[in-house]
This record gives sequence, structure tokens and C-alpha cells, in this order.
Amino acid sequence: MTLTNRHLVLRSRPTGMVAPSDVEVIESPVPVIGEGEALVRTNLVAIDAAVRTWLNDQPGYLPPVEIGETVRAGTVGEVIESHCDAYEVGDVVTTFGGFSEYSVCRDDIFTTVVGRRSLGTADIDRAELLAVFGSTGATAYFGMHDIGRPQPGETVVVSAAAGATGSVAGQIAKAAGARVVGIAGSDEKCSVVVAEFGFDSCINYRSEDLNVALRQHCPDRVDVYFDNVGGPTLNAVLGRLAMNARVVLCGVISSYVTGDHPGPSNYVQLLARRARMEGFNTLDHWDRYGEAEAALRRLVDSGQLRYRSQVFEGLERSVDALNALFEGTNIGKTMLRP
Amino acid sequence: MTLTNRHLVLRSRPTGMVAPSDVEVIESPVPVIGEGEALVRTNLVAIDAAVRTWLNDQPGYLPPVEIGETVRAGTVGEVIESHCDAYEVGDVVTTFGGFSEYSVCRDDIFTTVVGRRSLGTADIDRAELLAVFGSTGATAYFGMHDIGRPQPGETVVVSAAAGATGSVAGQIAKAAGARVVGIAGSDEKCSVVVAEFGFDSCINYRSEDLNVALRQHCPDRVDVYFDNVGGPTLNAVLGRLAMNARVVLCGVISSYVTGDHPGPSNYVQLLARRARMEGFNTLDHWDRYGEAEAALRRLVDSGQLRYRSQVFEGLERSVDALNALFEGTNIGKTMLRP
Repeated sequence: MTLTNRHLVLRSRPTGMVAPSDVEVIESPVPVIGEGEALVRTNLVAIDAAVRTWLNDQPGYLPPVEIGETVRAGTVGEVIESHCDAYEVGDVVTTFGGFSEYSVCRDDIFTTVVGRRSLGTADIDRAELLAVFGSTGATAYFGMHDIGRPQPGETVVVSAAAGATGSVAGQIAKAAGARVVGIAGSDEKCSVVVAEFGFDSCINYRSEDLNVALRQHCPDRVDVYFDNVGGPTLNAVLGRLAMNARVVLCGVISSYVTGDHPGPSNYVQLLARRARMEGFNTLDHWDRYGEAEAALRRLVDSGQLRYRSQVFEGLERSVDALNALFEGTNIGKTMLRP
Repeated sequence: MTLTNRHLVLRSRPTGMVAPSDVEVIESPVPVIGEGEALVRTNLVAIDAAVRTWLNDQPGYLPPVEIGETVRAGTVGEVIESHCDAYEVGDVVTTFGGFSEYSVCRDDIFTTVVGRRSLGTADIDRAELLAVFGSTGATAYFGMHDIGRPQPGETVVVSAAAGATGSVAGQIAKAAGARVVGIAGSDEKCSVVVAEFGFDSCINYRSEDLNVALRQHCPDRVDVYFDNVGGPTLNAVLGRLAMNARVVLCGVISSYVTGDHPGPSNYVQLLARRARMEGFNTLDHWDRYGEAEAALRRLVDSGQLRYRSQVFEGLERSVDALNALFEGTNIGKTMLRP
């Protein structure tokens, strides 16, 4: 029996938003796995901002997706065949399966077993996994825990606060005893950030003057800024830093699609405020995933970490899903069921 | 007997370079000291870039010098009268005596006894003290030691490499086993940086394309950047960072006089390179001055730390001395004998 695989390939590099003609859903036989490989059926594809960056022809921490290749993305799926000692049939894994019904994995750092049928641990909420655990939660954890290091009573600001990473990062800081202020792009998002994610307040940067709002919402200035967006938002928060502040550079979503912004002239405040701005990449710390997972699990179990997800159904919705991150309409974790 | 004090007062706030009409040398009686105070005769005034920033009407880590006040500056001098238990007549002290023949100090963190006649330790080279020790050396030490942390074999870049702080910072990194590349503004400066200060090489940013030169001089990219200038130089080095690089923000001399530059758009490389950019202020670490002094003393005694100084004679040369830092003509430590 030859199974048919449906997957999304890149046809041309998008400029700005992804156009329907930039990608195509094609069919091909499900790959025959070799020694050391396992076959995974994709349950959900994680729609991360990084996916969009891989479509550009510029080097990053992973190479660009080539024309004709399947569009890369993190996934959660189930092992249905294995020629690899690391994986059993029935394992639930996170991997880089891409926009594809099936994918092949090997025993490397990109694939993690998160549940095992033979151990009775395969009954996992896949949406929760992508929204709270996996690379999203680990990114929020490593950035906030290692660089931000919020202390009780400190003021923490998180941009893209309604997004997958931002919402988790803010809740981690809140659980650490900080006062947490979100920045988001609509009143609806701000409502969710406060009412569901438990932030102390949230600034709608589209309807408010950000400099004025930061003074109002952060009377004691900003001790930690978790930056998902870069651009003018980063510059505004740099202008409001407290002494010895930490700026966590997690992403630059403002430039992924619309191109480069001017640099943050308020970087000089790092000097005046003896502050630090630091970038990181979750993959560097993947050997500590267990630490992140345990910390996040404690927060979920104690009710201190909530999430939202939005699932697009079918590979045909790939373009809508990818663009949703940049249109300012998504709340929580965006994912796609192929 | 009433001694006459000559000192430099601020008459108007300079825009750009200091004009002769912005300041005035005036005479007034030497202050009568009260309980808890000591009178210091100034030997040398340190001409630091920070002095120029204090003439602007904007808050910094110290308040602006007010119109009519003596221009603030770090000094080395000798205690000639004391009503304070902390100081004996004959003590050599570093203090903020300003552009003034005499000043009054108290027992606070701004005044440090560096030699004592009664202990036979007052025979100190005042120029060496200002050039290598005091706040200049401590700034280089704290920035390089605490934030830069150069490792053997790493590549360290220092801007304003012929200047007081840069020349010491580079020699500290060199002694730590790093490859050290300077950036300076003339061929003469570059020669001194290599031949006298022992840097491995030096880029003349006025005659070379900095981006091209950084690729040539730093084939393994830049692990530590000690930034004294900001502006386009900072942006260029940010574009050449190695993984896990450290950027030490020590000063922004490019903006002290000429106003703000655009922010460094290459800050996004902090994210791609998991790098850190951090500001600091020497005064925060003044309780560790002894540590810095001891480390610098070892380097001087072992011949690993050399300095140059330029002394302006007389308060009438104050304007020339202040502007020398920004005209790109100074090499080593600039100072003035009032």
C-alpha cells in the first residue's frame, strides 16, 4: 500500500504577506523510511513567526526554505513506523515536520518524545502542547528565566502580549511576583491579556500614545522588557527603562514582513540606566527543555498559566494561517491541522 | 591671610564645541572649610568626555552644571587643611575638584585617598594616576572585566582606541590573551595604538570603509566590542558580531557634541548572534576601586600597560582642553594643570 502525502511547497519567495501563488499544496508518496528513521503523522503544525523568516532568502539560525521544498515548521505528531531505536510506534513527538501530513524524523535534537503509548503517556492535549510547551513555552521560559529574571515587585513589560510567546512570558513573570504590563494591538487583545492571561494591565499601542501610556502604566519604570516586535515599540520602552533593566530580545516581528525599521536611538538609555539588552535562541538551550517543561507544567497545574489557541483546518488554509500572525488578528497560539 | 582661588565658571551652555564666551575664569576667596570638610589644592584636572555632557541642560548620572557654577571635573590634588577625620594634611586625593585651583571635599564616595604623606606614600605620579588609575582606569577595568570578559584567543574591538579609556581597555584585553583591534581617527593614532599600546592592529575609520576593514581585521568576527563612540561605528561592529558576543557600552562620544545619531539598526544582530549589549557606570562599582587599582598596578608593573598624556597648562587653556577630546586630536589622557 502506498500512502499519499499532501504537503505545502514553496513556489516563490513572498514579499510582505504570503500570496496564494507563493505556495502550492501537492501530493506525493509518503516517504519510505530508512535505517535510523521514523515516520510521523502530523497532528498539528505550529504557526510561528519564524516560519515566515525562513521563506526569505537570507541566512538565519536555520537555512532558508528552498524553492520547491516543503515549508518548514514545528509540528506535533505520532510515530506510525520506526526504524530508529529512539522512537516507538505510538510515540507522540514534537519535530520539524513542516506543513505536511507526514514527515520523517531521526534521532536528533529537533525531535523530542513527549508521550509514549507503551508507557500510557500518549494521551496528550496536542493544542496545549504547542501553545504552552514545545518551543513556544520554552522560548518564553528561557528568555524570561535566563535573561529577564523578574523579581517580586518589579515591573515587566511584554510586547505582542496576546501572542503565543508573549502571553506565556507574561504569565511566567506574573507567577514570579512581578507587575506585568502587556502591549497589544487591539482592545479585544488587551481584554484577553488582562482577563484571561492575568496581566495587571495592557496598552493598545494602536490607539494610545505609547510614550504617554508607558509613563502611566509603569510609574516605577520598566525593569524587564520582553521584546517580540522591535521597531518603534522597542525604542519607546528603551526610553522608559529602570536602573539595571534587562531587555530580552526574542523577536522582531515588526521587520519580518514590512522590512527594516530605523534602529532604536534610545539604546543610549542602556548606558544611562546601566541596563542590558540580550538576544537568545531557544535551540541553544534545548538540552534544558526538561527544566522548562517542568516549570511550565507547575504553572499550568496551579492555574497560573492559561492559553488560547486558534486552529486553521486543512493545508488549504496555510496562507491564511501564516498571514494571521502579521495581520494583528491572532490571539494566543496559531496552529494548523493538515 | 585670605588666599585667592581662580576657577572656571559656566556662563552659557555650549552648543557643539565650547566657545570661549561659554566660560569665564574668575577669582574668589578660597573657601573657609567647616567641620567635616577638607581643603584640597588641585594638581591636575582630568579632561573627560563626561565633563562636556554636564554642560548640557539634561539629566545624566550627575546633575548638569548650573550657570555660574564652577565646571565639574575629576581632579587629583593635595589636602592642605582638614577638619575631617578621613583626611590628613598631605594626603593625595582624587576628587571632583572641578576646574579650580582649590576645592573642598567631604568624607564621601567622590573622594579617595591615594597617598598619605605621614605613611610615606604621597610621592605619586599625578599624570599616571589620572591616565591609568582613577576613574579612567577603573572605567576600562570594570567595563572590560565585568561585561566584556575577554577570553584567550577571542577578538576584541575597541573604539576611540587612542583615547584614555580605550587605550587602557584594549591593553587589559590584550593581557587577558585576546586579539585586540583598535578603531581610531588618524594614521598617527593608529600607529600609537599598535606601537605603544600593543594592539594587534588598528583601523583608521576616517580613511577606511569600516565594514570592509572589520571583515579584514576580524576574520573570526568580534567577541567583545568596547564602545566609546556609538553612532555609525557601533552599528558597523554590531554587524560583525560573533556568537555570544558582548558589547560594552562605555560612552557615546559621537553624540555628546554633534547631537543624536540614528539608532543602530544592526541591533537585530544581538538576536541572531545571541549577543549582549550592556551599559555601566563606574561610580556604581566604586566600592571595588581597590580591586581595579590592584589589577591595573600589576599590568603597569609588568610592562603590559602603557599610557600617554597631554597636559594643558593653565585655566586659560580650559576651552582648548575640553574641545581637544572632540576634535579628534588627542592621544591618551588629556589633563589640565590649573
